[in-house]
Amino acid sequence: MEFKRGFASDNNSGVHPQIMEAMVAVNQGHVTAYGEDAHSKAAERLFKENFGEQAEVFMVYNGTGANVIAIQALTRSFNAVICAETAHIHVDECGAPEKHSGCKILTVATPDGKLTPQLIQMHLHGFGFEHHAQPKVVSISQTTEMGTVYSLEEIKRLAEFVHRQGLFLHMDGARISNAAASLNCSFKAMTTELGVDVLSFGGTKNGMMFGEAVVFLNSSLAADVKYIRKQTTQLHSKMRFIAAQFMAYFSGELWRKNALHANRMAQLLYQELKDVKGVEITQKVEANGVFARLPQAVIKPLQEAFFFYVWDEHLNEVRWMASFDTTHEDIKKFVARLKELLAHV
Amino acid sequence: MEFKRGFASDNNSGVHPQIMEAMVAVNQGHVTAYGEDAHSKAAERLFKENFGEQAEVFMVYNGTGANVIAIQALTRSFNAVICAETAHIHVDECGAPEKHSGCKILTVATPDGKLTPQLIQMHLHGFGFEHHAQPKVVSISQTTEMGTVYSLEEIKRLAEFVHRQGLFLHMDGARISNAAASLNCSFKAMTTELGVDVLSFGGTKNGMMFGEAVVFLNSSLAADVKYIRKQTTQLHSKMRFIAAQFMAYFSGELWRKNALHANRMAQLLYQELKDVKGVEITQKVEANGVFARLPQAVIKPLQEAFFFYVWDEHLNEVRWMASFDTTHEDIKKFVARLKELLAHV
Amino acid sequence: MEFKRGFASDNNSGVHPQIMEAMVAVNQGHVTAYGEDAHSKAAERLFKENFGEQAEVFMVYNGTGANVIAIQALTRSFNAVICAETAHIHVDECGAPEKHSGCKILTVATPDGKLTPQLIQMHLHGFGFEHHAQPKVVSISQTTEMGTVYSLEEIKRLAEFVHRQGLFLHMDGARISNAAASLNCSFKAMTTELGVDVLSFGGTKNGMMFGEAVVFLNSSLAADVKYIRKQTTQLHSKMRFIAAQFMAYFSGELWRKNALHANRMAQLLYQELKDVKGVEITQKVEANGVFARLPQAVIKPLQEAFFFYVWDEHLNEVRWMASFDTTHEDIKKFVARLKELLAHV
Amino acid sequence: MEFKRGFASDNNSGVHPQIMEAMVAVNQGHVTAYGEDAHSKAAERLFKENFGEQAEVFMVYNGTGANVIAIQALTRSFNAVICAETAHIHVDECGAPEKHSGCKILTVATPDGKLTPQLIQMHLHGFGFEHHAQPKVVSISQTTEMGTVYSLEEIKRLAEFVHRQGLFLHMDGARISNAAASLNCSFKAMTTELGVDVLSFGGTKNGMMFGEAVVFLNSSLAADVKYIRKQTTQLHSKMRFIAAQFMAYFSGELWRKNALHANRMAQLLYQELKDVKGVEITQKVEANGVFARLPQAVIKPLQEAFFFYVWDEHLNEVRWMASFDTTHEDIKKFVARLKELLAHV
Repeated sequence: MEFKRGFASDNNSGVHPQIMEAMVAVNQGHVTAYGEDAHSKAAERLFKENFGEQAEVFMVYNGTGANVIAIQALTRSFNAVICAETAHIHVDECGAPEKHSGCKILTVATPDGKLTPQLIQMHLHGFGFEHHAQPKVVSISQTTEMGTVYSLEEIKRLAEFVHRQGLFLHMDGARISNAAASLNCSFKAMTTELGVDVLSFGGTKNGMMFGEAVVFLNSSLAADVKYIRKQTTQLHSKMRFIAAQFMAYFSGELWRKNALHANRMAQLLYQELKDVKGVEITQKVEANGVFARLPQAVIKPLQEAFFFYVWDEHLNEVRWMASFDTTHEDIKKFVARLKELLAHV
Repeated sequence: MEFKRGFASDNNSGVHPQIMEAMVAVNQGHVTAYGEDAHSKAAERLFKENFGEQAEVFMVYNGTGANVIAIQALTRSFNAVICAETAHIHVDECGAPEKHSGCKILTVATPDGKLTPQLIQMHLHGFGFEHHAQPKVVSISQTTEMGTVYSLEEIKRLAEFVHRQGLFLHMDGARISNAAASLNCSFKAMTTELGVDVLSFGGTKNGMMFGEAVVFLNSSLAADVKYIRKQTTQLHSKMRFIAAQFMAYFSGELWRKNALHANRMAQLLYQELKDVKGVEITQKVEANGVFARLPQAVIKPLQEAFFFYVWDEHLNEVRWMASFDTTHEDIKKFVARLKELLAHV
Repeated sequence: MEFKRGFASDNNSGVHPQIMEAMVAVNQGHVTAYGEDAHSKAAERLFKENFGEQAEVFMVYNGTGANVIAIQALTRSFNAVICAETAHIHVDECGAPEKHSGCKILTVATPDGKLTPQLIQMHLHGFGFEHHAQPKVVSISQTTEMGTVYSLEEIKRLAEFVHRQGLFLHMDGARISNAAASLNCSFKAMTTELGVDVLSFGGTKNGMMFGEAVVFLNSSLAADVKYIRKQTTQLHSKMRFIAAQFMAYFSGELWRKNALHANRMAQLLYQELKDVKGVEITQKVEANGVFARLPQAVIKPLQEAFFFYVWDEHLNEVRWMASFDTTHEDIKKFVARLKELLAHV
Repeated sequence: MEFKRGFASDNNSGVHPQIMEAMVAVNQGHVTAYGEDAHSKAAERLFKENFGEQAEVFMVYNGTGANVIAIQALTRSFNAVICAETAHIHVDECGAPEKHSGCKILTVATPDGKLTPQLIQMHLHGFGFEHHAQPKVVSISQTTEMGTVYSLEEIKRLAEFVHRQGLFLHMDGARISNAAASLNCSFKAMTTELGVDVLSFGGTKNGMMFGEAVVFLNSSLAADVKYIRKQTTQLHSKMRFIAAQFMAYFSGELWRKNALHANRMAQLLYQELKDVKGVEITQKVEANGVFARLPQAVIKPLQEAFFFYVWDEHLNEVRWMASFDTTHEDIKKFVARLKELLAHV
């Protein structure tokens, strides 16, 4: 079996031991399937503790599933969803949002993966005009796909702006824990209290095995979601094994510990490289990702030693993601190898 | 936490210890996500060993996902899928097949959940007529939702008939292991060798935690499936944890041991009850399910002690499913309680 | 050019001269497209006069379009639509309702194409159960596809029953004029006053060239329909040419004159044949269609002289449709030829 | 009835008298519905004469319908369609392409509504990568929505480029006649001979009442289209009335006469205005549209006298469309009024 380590994706890491233990622990006897068991109810309770009593949570398999369910719940097929052109829902889901919802995805170019009221404005027209897909959702990613983090104030202003236009605010939180760790705040302070309507809450990239959740902070939007989840093929039968993961994940804020660690490792990588000649850091390092431009010649050889992806081939821009299990040793070896390669360019 | 046992569903059981161990065992280090790791390749290899070298396998999250992907791969939206009116794809998937594929589902009433060429015939017309959804897939469930099992000869005749009409044969194998155990044959002998085109291969109901597979026995149909899987939201990131389960599942034919046990427990239940006054067994007991009519008055009290579902409220028909972890003790207690209740009717 | 006459379909006839004249008459100058012109507003006014002030009307191209828009307006994709197994939406629209709405179509066998509360009951279960497509619409055809007509009392009882269950009642009125002529009532008396929620109003089969309308009698359901119509590809640009047709159609109750004539011709055909040996009339003749079983040997030769369709090949059952332009001469020649053929069987 | 004339849209004009006459002329007797009549066959013949014997034609109701059918025929739901960000399929169809096909629409900013190989390049990546919607169609509009016209050489280069990438070339020809008139070429020379795979052929904007056609120049792609047309709700029953229009439209190249006239009127408008102070022509005038920026103060008063639309509110850019029935008088009055208004700014 392969054991090459790397920075390709926080999905390449395994499962945090406490989460694995929790899964083993619930493997006893019979419980009702499809979420009607005590473990699932307990997990739902924890979500309410983390997001407010009004929150309605639907556990699902993965992030694409969560996003697609959220969009379906907020829209009819003649609506449009506005997002950054780097958004996962636009770039990395093979058109699943369009297929499942029928909606048009309208994208905005951004310097850093972050939307602003000004950037959204260009798509806010044609309301009431039947030839025009009707904008209904603004979707932001927190942490963004560029490794940047919206400040609480930025989210608040976006939410207010979006609601004034009669739209909903969706947050793709595949890396929400990294953002909460970065901002040193609670989940609730970053979502419910700012006016986020629906959140795709991710755990897999931060130490879980599988399982994400669609969290309706605006619970008036949740009425039909159980049917949407089932029809989208995202309802798990043996739900206790997702529930157990979330219970371990919330317990003692394991999510924050994991995310803080990953963020720190990214920060360490950044500190080690920011002044290295030949390395140009292209985005602020605010969570667990580092984006950089490198001389083309070093990319391939570096990839032979460590997993990572080229983000933009035209720019020779690469992405390095740190994970809950990234070690100082990983960083040290990686930096050493990169410097070695740079010396020979 | 609750520990009431029962016969509600093979989904109420947990995970077989060997499978859980395998999941723990692969939880080491970094591996490439989305199925490009050595574990996943090894699991795919096992599928080929079990279904033939030509087989193409796509691991997914659950049975509805597998069915919906199979149907999309075999159809365009103007096609129709023919199935028994008791089929899971018609009754238990909240309309997911229609939503994902756009196809019409045409149903046939059957006495025992099994299709025959004669029963299908009624829907085989209107070919080439643009007003009519064009039949393209016949979908059978092996084991059926009524606990019955197609013989190899029955499947072969169906496959030949279906292919002569220019259609494809899909098998929903959520309980395929119970059928293979019942018929004492290999997977290959029940699918590839008989002409089944695509199989939804289930493991969750027989001791796995999550994960099923779409197996293209007719690999010419598999070209686009990786995109369909992703767009359907059924591509898992940390795939090694599905792969590990399948490796344990195939290893030493664990699947057969589990299924044989469940079948025997169903048989035991049947033997204990078949001559009991007040109990009318309504279907042949060929796998791990027992269907029976009971006096209405005993159903509720019995449900208070053991999980199980009423199958048909009008008929007072109930369904009892045995699982890999059903014990002789479970059966004994259940039969005792039922007899006790019947004595007071 | 061919001029064989027949009884194949009311779609084989042309356009009533008064309607054609009206189309020519509005062909002057520039008017705003897409229904924002005075002709379209005037046509909408006539719909309100015929269906009540609350009615909201959306003119479209054809009946399949009207049905598909109505269903989308009443449902979400996890819903189910209940109809007779002979319904146009199930049999004759190539799966368009499933494709456009994502909904499951649940069918009921009927002796005469007519639903009753009792017949619907079998599909009214599983409410609130997420595995089950949620019934939301009952769709009836008035006139039915079997040439029968619901009485006002039958529709009223259905509407009350359907509403008590929390469902909506849709009427496919491709031949609504024939029904209103048959029952000697107004459109309003057959729809609005009985509780029909949405109507697909047909004109093409009764003397129009193209153009139908979706009429929301329950206007609370109409809010989003203009977007649905556009997205379904059913919004016409030069709308005045549909509007002009409807204006002529409603003017002086041309619709009733045309429909009464067609009904009388069907009745005449029925009277001429009902006692003829070898001809078995299989449905009540209540509108403009006649269904009959014939000796197989006469069907083909008869079709060589007159257009008509075999309805059920297994039963040698044929369908004869009379139209607004069917003549006594047509009937006379047809009956003569049929008798001649029967004499040689 | 209103008779304000204007330049809002070529859809605001009526029906050319010769076309209306042809519709009246075919209104005789019974003919088979749904395109199986002699008129429809004759119209199809004319399409083959104009596009080559290999062409397969499907007459439909409108342009959105034609585009949506073409895209469905060329794609599976995991594909992407590349177009200019001004394309009708992106801007003016309320998301119909996404809804019907499930595909992602990828847009490119252009100065003049025209795609080039260079502009397309940015979306040509991720092939074989399942997370990425797979590009499969490039869609161009000829005439573009900006009133510009691709040269034959430009189309040829695009077609070659697109095919080298394994994609198909679709042409939205809502105003194809204006382009053919502008380039003084035949339809065939602008499509079939250059490698266009599928064309949405428009007639409504150039003197027809309703009816467009999807023309498969690459007929290997047409096999399933009759079902797609029906399921998309675009199959007309009394097809002879679309066929008759196309027969008149092709007869004596009426299409070219109408288009040439419209183009000349646009050119006249351009000549009259190009040197007028306060009017900035923003696009080349190559067909029947003129785009211009005006002082904001004159726009509203001008619209009170003549129909036309503001194209871009931020830029005070307006669009004026000439039609087959635009007169010298229309232009003269319009220019006079505009000059009058400009004098008072």
